[in-house]
Amino acid sequence: MDEMIKIAVDAMGGDHAPAEMVKGAVGAVALRQDIKVYLIGQQDRVKEELAKYSYQGTQIEVIHAQEVIETAEPPVMAIRRKKQSSIVLGMNMVKEKKADAFVSAGSSGAILVGGQVIVGRIKGVERPPLAPLIPTKKGVSLLIDCGANVDARASHLVQFAKMGSIYMENVLQVKHPRVAIVNIGAEEEKGNALVKETFPLLKNCPDINFVGSIEARDIPHGEADVIVCEAFVGNVILKLYEGVGATFLSMVKQGMMETFRSKVGALLVKPALKKTLKGFEASEYGGAPLLGLNGLVVKTHGSSKAKEVTNSIIQCVTFKEQEINEKIRKNIGTSPMEE
Amino acid sequence: MDEMIKIAVDAMGGDHAPAEMVKGAVGAVALRQDIKVYLIGQQDRVKEELAKYSYQGTQIEVIHAQEVIETAEPPVMAIRRKKQSSIVLGMNMVKEKKADAFVSAGSSGAILVGGQVIVGRIKGVERPPLAPLIPTKKGVSLLIDCGANVDARASHLVQFAKMGSIYMENVLQVKHPRVAIVNIGAEEEKGNALVKETFPLLKNCPDINFVGSIEARDIPHGEADVIVCEAFVGNVILKLYEGVGATFLSMVKQGMMETFRSKVGALLVKPALKKTLKGFEASEYGGAPLLGLNGLVVKTHGSSKAKEVTNSIIQCVTFKEQEINEKIRKNIGTSPMEE
Repeated sequence: MDEMIKIAVDAMGGDHAPAEMVKGAVGAVALRQDIKVYLIGQQDRVKEELAKYSYQGTQIEVIHAQEVIETAEPPVMAIRRKKQSSIVLGMNMVKEKKADAFVSAGSSGAILVGGQVIVGRIKGVERPPLAPLIPTKKGVSLLIDCGANVDARASHLVQFAKMGSIYMENVLQVKHPRVAIVNIGAEEEKGNALVKETFPLLKNCPDINFVGSIEARDIPHGEADVIVCEAFVGNVILKLYEGVGATFLSMVKQGMMETFRSKVGALLVKPALKKTLKGFEASEYGGAPLLGLNGLVVKTHGSSKAKEVTNSIIQCVTFKEQEINEKIRKNIGTSPMEE
Repeated sequence: MDEMIKIAVDAMGGDHAPAEMVKGAVGAVALRQDIKVYLIGQQDRVKEELAKYSYQGTQIEVIHAQEVIETAEPPVMAIRRKKQSSIVLGMNMVKEKKADAFVSAGSSGAILVGGQVIVGRIKGVERPPLAPLIPTKKGVSLLIDCGANVDARASHLVQFAKMGSIYMENVLQVKHPRVAIVNIGAEEEKGNALVKETFPLLKNCPDINFVGSIEARDIPHGEADVIVCEAFVGNVILKLYEGVGATFLSMVKQGMMETFRSKVGALLVKPALKKTLKGFEASEYGGAPLLGLNGLVVKTHGSSKAKEVTNSIIQCVTFKEQEINEKIRKNIGTSPMEE
């Protein structure tokens, strides 16, 4: 029992909670017998969902949480006041080493605040970045940071590059991940003040495989594995990615329904098209880790279904097995950047 | 003759110069008899192209330019040294009021530098923004600024909002254009330091219809007519828009070629799909104006074909007819922001 990897899951967060969260947890324990999942939430509702499935009873435990943090609540207040919420309870479990990781599809703001305030940073880590995977033509890239760290400094971005490299190398098994910084041109002299300051630091950083600037246009082509930017820009990239993709898809669908001829064609095209576009989905890799914490916190999409929840739990297992935090601790601690 | 609107066109800039530039100019004078187009470039090559068409001879004049500024050249140097380039000659014509506007598909950097250094700013305008139109589900939005003004200040963004409103209202005939600022959340307290400082200024600006923050996800839905941001973020939005769109389209095409069944379907779907996706093209509205100058400079896509060139010339005509610069001069000059 003691060797089990323990994952706490917010059963109440997300659009399809608790049903899909519970289903995702059941899916994860079916895949791995060496993990234990704590489902945190309103126990009556969670148990009602759990009753629908059969699973190894010792692998799932329900932990009651009286309160729920709503997406619209101001995060700092919510974390401070709702001590009995699933998010605060889950974060506390990680802090107290009762869980190795916490997965939530709930309020991004509360997760970011809770991660920093409750779980706390690894010594030497200046700011913990939120690093979602985004789909590309070649697979996925890690976009780091999309979190709360707006107006970051150059030293933060260097740490993001290092943590992102460790993550991609060990969790996604990408050898010598290519690190690029988001810029408005390929040349070294291009950019805003932050990028100009960060560029030479990344270039001289021995621990990473820095390949230079990446223009936003080239991100979907998969030209880099770790895409470094400050959180405002990262957030814009992440959300525009979703927005343009969704708009484009809806226009393709609309176009196909335009005429009788196109409707017939749509029926024929659909299966192959669906298969191809499935590749342009990042959810199968799990959620976005909040890196650099004393433990692991993973934010999954608010719209997460069971499969993404299962994948996020498995992602936490890999994170633990690959000793990512030990590697971050070692790398950031001994870094010449740190003085 | 004196009442003619005079447009200078860089015949040498862009991937398809001079052929498509010349063809576009011929297209424009066919549409409007009250305009005169100056084609600036290597005269032998330009005249050779011109000889392919019939047009009203007095409406097109070729002006010889010995030099060409290449896309890769450092812009400041290029503008300073290549006095006989099509870009410098065109800018000088605008400066000397020999032309009302200059259209180029050449080096963005050289166009931005030339606009500021040669044509010069309207008194009171702190920085001239480059403002492309981006396609949305509902039509187009003006993305302002995508230019060279990285690390902008709040007062710059307020001017962008005003100039963008004037442009959308008068050139695109959008009544009371909705102005939004790019942000990472909808609430007023969200954002980086620049957005937090700018938000209340826009809110209290009497000349614009400010609707608050816009998240990148909602940009493709057309939730705002004027989308205000500083140039680094604007550049990321513009290029990611193109990148995700192009990647998505290539994946759709690839998906359709996957099986025999899908290939047959693709043939049936193609005409309707093409028609729908054409709506998601901004080039029919012309190029990106560099606003706030003593004249007009329009940057068109490097990949511009004749139609976009024609549209850009017509856009310059509307700009002149609607007296946009007089409106900007009046609005920025009398603004309470200016003190």
